[in-house]
Amino acid sequence: MKIEVLRGGICAVKGVRAHGIKEGNKGLALIEGKGKAAGMFTSNKIKAAPVRFAKKQLEKGEGRISAILANSGCANSFTGEKGMRNAEEMAELASSSLGVDKEEVAVASTGPIGEQLDMGLIERQLGEVVNGLTSGEVGSTAAAKAIMTTDTFHKERAISIDTGDEERVVIGGIAKGSGMIFPHLATATMLSFIYTDASLGEEALRRSLKDAVDNSFNMIVVDGDMSTNDMVLLVSTGKGGKISEGDFKEGLNFVCKELAKMIVRDGEGATKFVEVRVRGAASVEDAREVAKAIVRSPLVKSAIFGERLDLTCGRIIAAIGGSAISGDIESSEISISLKNENEKEVLAVKKGEFMDLSGVARDIMKEKEMIIDVDLGMGGEVEATAWGCDLTYDYVRINAG
Amino acid sequence: MKIEVLRGGICAVKGVRAHGIKEGNKGLALIEGKGKAAGMFTSNKIKAAPVRFAKKQLEKGEGRISAILANSGCANSFTGEKGMRNAEEMAELASSSLGVDKEEVAVASTGPIGEQLDMGLIERQLGEVVNGLTSGEVGSTAAAKAIMTTDTFHKERAISIDTGDEERVVIGGIAKGSGMIFPHLATATMLSFIYTDASLGEEALRRSLKDAVDNSFNMIVVDGDMSTNDMVLLVSTGKGGKISEGDFKEGLNFVCKELAKMIVRDGEGATKFVEVRVRGAASVEDAREVAKAIVRSPLVKSAIFGERLDLTCGRIIAAIGGSAISGDIESSEISISLKNENEKEVLAVKKGEFMDLSGVARDIMKEKEMIIDVDLGMGGEVEATAWGCDLTYDYVRINAG
Repeated sequence: MKIEVLRGGICAVKGVRAHGIKEGNKGLALIEGKGKAAGMFTSNKIKAAPVRFAKKQLEKGEGRISAILANSGCANSFTGEKGMRNAEEMAELASSSLGVDKEEVAVASTGPIGEQLDMGLIERQLGEVVNGLTSGEVGSTAAAKAIMTTDTFHKERAISIDTGDEERVVIGGIAKGSGMIFPHLATATMLSFIYTDASLGEEALRRSLKDAVDNSFNMIVVDGDMSTNDMVLLVSTGKGGKISEGDFKEGLNFVCKELAKMIVRDGEGATKFVEVRVRGAASVEDAREVAKAIVRSPLVKSAIFGERLDLTCGRIIAAIGGSAISGDIESSEISISLKNENEKEVLAVKKGEFMDLSGVARDIMKEKEMIIDVDLGMGGEVEATAWGCDLTYDYVRINAG
Repeated sequence: MKIEVLRGGICAVKGVRAHGIKEGNKGLALIEGKGKAAGMFTSNKIKAAPVRFAKKQLEKGEGRISAILANSGCANSFTGEKGMRNAEEMAELASSSLGVDKEEVAVASTGPIGEQLDMGLIERQLGEVVNGLTSGEVGSTAAAKAIMTTDTFHKERAISIDTGDEERVVIGGIAKGSGMIFPHLATATMLSFIYTDASLGEEALRRSLKDAVDNSFNMIVVDGDMSTNDMVLLVSTGKGGKISEGDFKEGLNFVCKELAKMIVRDGEGATKFVEVRVRGAASVEDAREVAKAIVRSPLVKSAIFGERLDLTCGRIIAAIGGSAISGDIESSEISISLKNENEKEVLAVKKGEFMDLSGVARDIMKEKEMIIDVDLGMGGEVEATAWGCDLTYDYVRINAG
């Protein structure tokens, strides 16, 4: 198979129309596109009304979605029964505007926790958004912009997969998420809506989405806080070419990783992008835990901001040991090297021993992008990658409001 | 029982002598005092040599300790077999200097990870420290100062317990820990050495230490990173009065909480001290998880630094839901109030609803000390308290080196 990057985000998928508007910090995005759907939702024990509603819709509507209506500027979270009624009303409004079954409308929200939606505003904005619906690439961009909160740029990606059998499958997605640049936002929410024309069964869609999310959105850390509103929806129109589940997974992984990395690059106050690759763990779960523990550590993150090669490595060691892995760790087997984009490499820890780094050019820490390669030396062939950013003065400034 | 605060730290306990010196960032503390001992150690999977050594000593020496030798400026962590031999040599040096059984010497270290100890320096410093050993309160202070790294003040506390039966029991402790003000320190280590004259069995000592540590040192968060060197040792000379296990636990809890709170007050870059009380959880474990999740959240911490009442509450909600508790959470049962030292109180969330805080005096956020009171409303009578600090520009400055 061959992957080619396309323009157009979600609208690169035939049959998908979108639009969105933003007034001040209140935005509304509408996406129309029918198909089988799979969803993944926040594991926060306090789930916002739209999350509970969208989960229910996916179960009720036989796993089909015809439209997604998403607002920014209010999370509709911790809003009691009224919040649940408002989520339902959002779906009803979209359903009657588009003439689609209201059981097949999903809703999503992002913004401050604890406030009720302004339904009058949503109704008014919806009228405008419906009129602007388009299958052109501007539609995807408008929707991606409408759901931005603290994001400093909008996020979309589309690909075409050449399966090699003269079949082509398109996957396109938009996402939002960054952190907390807008001072009233209570928690950074991650939303992503992905469309494809791939013809695949429901179970295959669900498996593919879980696999892709586990390797992408679940492997990024800005600050380790978890939103009540996170949601990823995948809708397949089924009108495209045939594709094996394996090839589709690979394509979906690509799109989700691209979107996830955009979120980290847009991390609040971030000046550096960090990729952590962990090899040689006893299991892939352990490799993931270690990779996430490293990108989550405030001490590692601030050492990277300070461009301190010496501090970074000791703190990585402590983060590895402090991670919630099930297997043992053998200090004398751990190796760590740091690379930059050009694959210039510094071996910092070799089989349990810190290398003498006094003579080493520390330019590697001055790069905007860094790869930390950790070999746990436990023999496993498994590997996991996590993405994160540095911890900066701007993170504090932004979040202290 | 009645608790009275004494001067003198560990030297308030009869039979305990101590001294310490510090040259630059290299310090050495020696404590002499024979008795039954209990210890608790870091749960980091990568344990520094002194941690592994001290654990072994506690098992070998039939749970008795005659002396503790602790150095600052080098963690002796991730130092391989040479590190283990050096930890042993530290114990041998103390043993021959004091004429005590070397099986009964515990060692501890704090400082940067990945460097070997300078044994020549330790031997030279030990000579000086042995000569200065004293049972006066200056001994405790010198030892507490010698183990400081990034600490901005030394930490000691002693109490006398009046059991009511004309018996008196003394408990005295020192501690170090704060964060990372010294730029070469790889991870903030928490060390605490506690002495008592209470006459209690080994099992009772162990149970009491676990209980006290679970309620104190295990409930403080500066940044959520876990050291490879954390250690708490409790030594009982047994020469004091009789005391019930319950009364002793209460006293030991008091001392450990006092020392733990000092560590948080000395948290790197901290400008605010935050106490989080969680009630109404299904179990005490759940209450602890929720309390720790709140004090750990970078978003909550930066909102407190920014004195933003509005931001703080939504972020607390997200932290509660994101905590690793086993029971369910019912949003509509959660109440949150904020108090300051003078118990001026703002009810911010009442049974799942955000109160209108627009008219409320926000002075409460301007205080240096704040109490966040969370009632999960799940009916349990259990309660847990955690302590933390705000996330500030100085945290980043300090840790970026």
